Amino acid sequence: MRSRQPVNDNSVSREERESGSRFVPKFDSNGLLTAVVVDVDSKDVLVVAFMNAEALARTRESGNVHFWSRSRGRLWLKGETSGNFLKVEKMLVDCDQDALVIHASPDGPTCHTGARSCFYRRLDPDADDASALFSASR
Amino acid sequence: MRSRQPVNDNSVSREERESGSRFVPKFDSNGLLTAVVVDVDSKDVLVVAFMNAEALARTRESGNVHFWSRSRGRLWLKGETSGNFLKVEKMLVDCDQDALVIHASPDGPTCHTGARSCFYRRLDPDADDASALFSASR
Repeated sequence: MRSRQPVNDNSVSREERESGSRFVPKFDSNGLLTAVVVDVDSKDVLVVAFMNAEALARTRESGNVHFWSRSRGRLWLKGETSGNFLKVEKMLVDCDQDALVIHASPDGPTCHTGARSCFYRRLDPDADDASALFSASR
Repeated sequence: MRSRQPVNDNSVSREERESGSRFVPKFDSNGLLTAVVVDVDSKDVLVVAFMNAEALARTRESGNVHFWSRSRGRLWLKGETSGNFLKVEKMLVDCDQDALVIHASPDGPTCHTGARSCFYRRLDPDADDASALFSASR
C-alpha cells in the first residue's frame, strides 16, 4: 500500500529516523520542511524554500518542484507563472528528515529577478551592512 | 560605523532588498534565517540549519559557522563538541535576504552520525514511504 501524503510520526525512534530506509519527514511547527534546490549539473544552489506535506506529495508525483509559499500562504508550483519549472532529478534527505536537497534541471532562470540562481550576491562578512553585498559573479 | 548585529528593517523597499548592496537580513517570525552550508571544494550540501541574529553575527566575526539550535533552544557553534568546525570561505545571500548559502571548509565529518554530509540518503520519489530511503552513495 502506498502512502504518498507523508505525515509526522513521533513514534519513530531517533535511530530509525537517522539510519532506516523509512521516510518519515519531520515537519516543523508550521508543517514545513526546508527544501534546497541545486542545479543537477553545476551543483549551484538555485533556491531555498519550504514544502508542506502537499507540496512534497505533488513534487514526488509530478516530478516538478512544488513549494509552500509562506508569503502567499498557498501551494506554489515553481514555474507556474514563468514557465521555468524545476525538473526533479534526485532527492536527498538529511539525518533527522527535516530538510531535503533536490537536484533539478531548471527550464530557465530560477529567480523571479531573472537571475539563474536566487543567490546572485555575496556577503562580505567584514563589511558594514550598508554596503556588504556585491555581485557573486565579480 | 559598523553594525554587526543585523536587524529586520521592513522599511527597505523590495527593490533595495533585491538589488542593493545593503545587507538587511529578513528573519522569519521566529527570528531565524535558513542557512545552507556547502563544501567549498565538492559543492555538496553538508548541512541545512537556522541562524538568528546572534548566530549570524558570531559567524561573521569568528569565521566559523554558528547556528541557532531549534531543538536545544540555544546558540550552537558547529563543531563545539566534535571539533569539526566549518570554516567560512564564502557567504551568499538570496534575493529576498531570508536565506544564506555558505561555502565552507569542514574540519571533519559535518553530520553528528559521522557522515561527511547530513544528506547521506536518497529518497525514491515513487517508492512507498516505508522503504523509500537508500544510501546516497549507492
